[in-house]
Amino acid sequence: MKSQFNYFMPTRILFGPGKLKKLATTPFLPGKKALIVTSSGPSVKKYGYLDRVIEYLKQNNVSSVTFDKILPNPILDHVMEGAQAAKDNQCDFVVGLGGGSSIDSAKSIAVMAKNPGNYWDYVYGGTGKGKPVTGGALPIVAITTTAGTGTEADPWTVITNPQTNEKIGFGNDYTFPVLSIVDPELMVTVPPKFTAFQGMDAFFHSVEGYLATVSQPASDQYALEAVTLITKYLPVAVADGSNLEARTALAWANTEAGMVESLSSCISHHSLEHALSAYHPGLPHGAGLVLLSIAYFSFMAGKSPARFANLAKAMGKNVIDLPQEQQPFAFIAALKKLIAAIGLQDLKLSDYGVKKEEAPLLARNAMSAMGGLFAVDPYKLSPEEVTGIFEACLE
Amino acid sequence: MKSQFNYFMPTRILFGPGKLKKLATTPFLPGKKALIVTSSGPSVKKYGYLDRVIEYLKQNNVSSVTFDKILPNPILDHVMEGAQAAKDNQCDFVVGLGGGSSIDSAKSIAVMAKNPGNYWDYVYGGTGKGKPVTGGALPIVAITTTAGTGTEADPWTVITNPQTNEKIGFGNDYTFPVLSIVDPELMVTVPPKFTAFQGMDAFFHSVEGYLATVSQPASDQYALEAVTLITKYLPVAVADGSNLEARTALAWANTEAGMVESLSSCISHHSLEHALSAYHPGLPHGAGLVLLSIAYFSFMAGKSPARFANLAKAMGKNVIDLPQEQQPFAFIAALKKLIAAIGLQDLKLSDYGVKKEEAPLLARNAMSAMGGLFAVDPYKLSPEEVTGIFEACLE
Repeated sequence: MKSQFNYFMPTRILFGPGKLKKLATTPFLPGKKALIVTSSGPSVKKYGYLDRVIEYLKQNNVSSVTFDKILPNPILDHVMEGAQAAKDNQCDFVVGLGGGSSIDSAKSIAVMAKNPGNYWDYVYGGTGKGKPVTGGALPIVAITTTAGTGTEADPWTVITNPQTNEKIGFGNDYTFPVLSIVDPELMVTVPPKFTAFQGMDAFFHSVEGYLATVSQPASDQYALEAVTLITKYLPVAVADGSNLEARTALAWANTEAGMVESLSSCISHHSLEHALSAYHPGLPHGAGLVLLSIAYFSFMAGKSPARFANLAKAMGKNVIDLPQEQQPFAFIAALKKLIAAIGLQDLKLSDYGVKKEEAPLLARNAMSAMGGLFAVDPYKLSPEEVTGIFEACLE
Repeated sequence: MKSQFNYFMPTRILFGPGKLKKLATTPFLPGKKALIVTSSGPSVKKYGYLDRVIEYLKQNNVSSVTFDKILPNPILDHVMEGAQAAKDNQCDFVVGLGGGSSIDSAKSIAVMAKNPGNYWDYVYGGTGKGKPVTGGALPIVAITTTAGTGTEADPWTVITNPQTNEKIGFGNDYTFPVLSIVDPELMVTVPPKFTAFQGMDAFFHSVEGYLATVSQPASDQYALEAVTLITKYLPVAVADGSNLEARTALAWANTEAGMVESLSSCISHHSLEHALSAYHPGLPHGAGLVLLSIAYFSFMAGKSPARFANLAKAMGKNVIDLPQEQQPFAFIAALKKLIAAIGLQDLKLSDYGVKKEEAPLLARNAMSAMGGLFAVDPYKLSPEEVTGIFEACLE
């Protein structure tokens, strides 16, 4: 057991099918006027989620203003615009409603509603200026409609700066949601392909948090359970989105994966993907992770095999009967099987316009914009090795 | 998987051997003047823990006043007296230093430093008046020197009212410590018998939280890991108190057990013990739990066998080879083995002056003073059954 660590995950989580309506009665709303931050896409309106949130807030004596411009890869301009809306409307708190992009944006907006200047002044990594956040943030309420980013149970927000082609994670104690509502009923409408992408994002949060050098006993438990649940239930939910048992298990796995990100950390697999989707915004984050994963984790399992066998076990592999040197690679076999079970085996980076000659550029971007994650890798990658991993994915 | 639950455990925990000295540098102290609440016993002074805490606080620009009257079963009068000291000295926060009694007292003192009247006005259960705590509480910092109550990771405080012979648990969102330091180095001085009693308290918090009807996925994981760690390491630490690996594992198991109490709940086993030690204050809580446990859990395993096999598995029992109806009772066998491994097999309630004719009185006290826990039992006990369990322990 690791003997030195810090534990902190202060978010209050209301979990379960039907929990959205608790918004109307919960005593834990942090104010009387809310900015609802949500996607520019049609889903939250079409399925009535936004109307329900506005109405439940009203029943709980909270008035609200809606900011509905968030893109799938949320951008800096919308953070600044949303923060202005929060200030103009004198909002007490911010509600992020939707997938990771909406909730992440809500977090960044909450910061910029209380701090001067530009958001990129505070971002650390890449061209961010890393200024301290002295003004705190408006309290954040997260309402998830997907099972992917785990953002409802972590302080992280990922925003893209289109001017510099950087997609950078940011967060601090202020950006933990004070309250998160995780209602799997809101997730039954996610289409199969996005269910698969988002589920694999949660899967890799867990896997990476388990492999990171800063893992701790609590994150290990959450990570292994999430890996088990996703392996079992993601193929079920991709095949039948209306299966509420599978959606509930995946929603919890995703929340667990968020806790893993709070208590441990992602590793450079995520940095590599951020570089990809910064240059190719049409590439969904989860797809990018899947497309990098076999090359990335095969390389890592060769260099730092220690914890891979437990991941394979969590995926249901009977590793005990394998020669010890093969046990770590049982995880790669199980991962390939999972990718096939959710119908992503034929996905290619070239489908998204990524070219082999970009590999050195992508490697440089990954190591500068999200360089911090390389520091917690179980094996220290060189720039050449990172380039090599990108190239291996583009063969 | 249970599909409906709420998750909340906001305490920041600094864990690991040597972590006490972080008190000198942590940015998370909630003020500039502290009331240190600690035991009337000699340990925290003899081993220099109190002096170190005062000095580290000073290095962190925090002045302090010490209130060192807390008894092993802390009493109402000292809560009121400590609260007066906090007010008289205009303390910003309260530090609980020691075992459960000191930290629990710190929590209750923190409440009464910010609310009028008597502490028992706010206690719910028994003769407590159950008034709402409208004034909040001073922030609480917990520094544990034992691995027993888990109070560093839960909101609960157990105080005895000697006038009414009631020992009642109490807590709310304000009584979660804002910061807990869990430094296993402070635990190596605990004598073998108390190591055993305290470890078994943590063990039963885990077992009960796993059996309670309000368990949830996160508490289940913590509970089962704590049961595994205590089964493995408690005999080691009882035999050799200086074994830091065992102390570290037990410290984490105890913190996990505290999280279990935050996320799930104890069941009536704890109510029965509180009745015992309310009438027999010389009986250590952990000893009382051990002495009730075989009769109590044997009865429960007969009435509600569902989750006992997993507990037996967590204790290392190979239940899969047993006939199904015997699997729950593998837990009882493992529990007996653990009790013997820590040298408590010859302990008797009569050693502490408990008499068989007290059984009906103890049953009534348990069901009134701590009646709430009966509501989350996996099987609903009648007064006669509770009396019967007491009688079985006194044969």
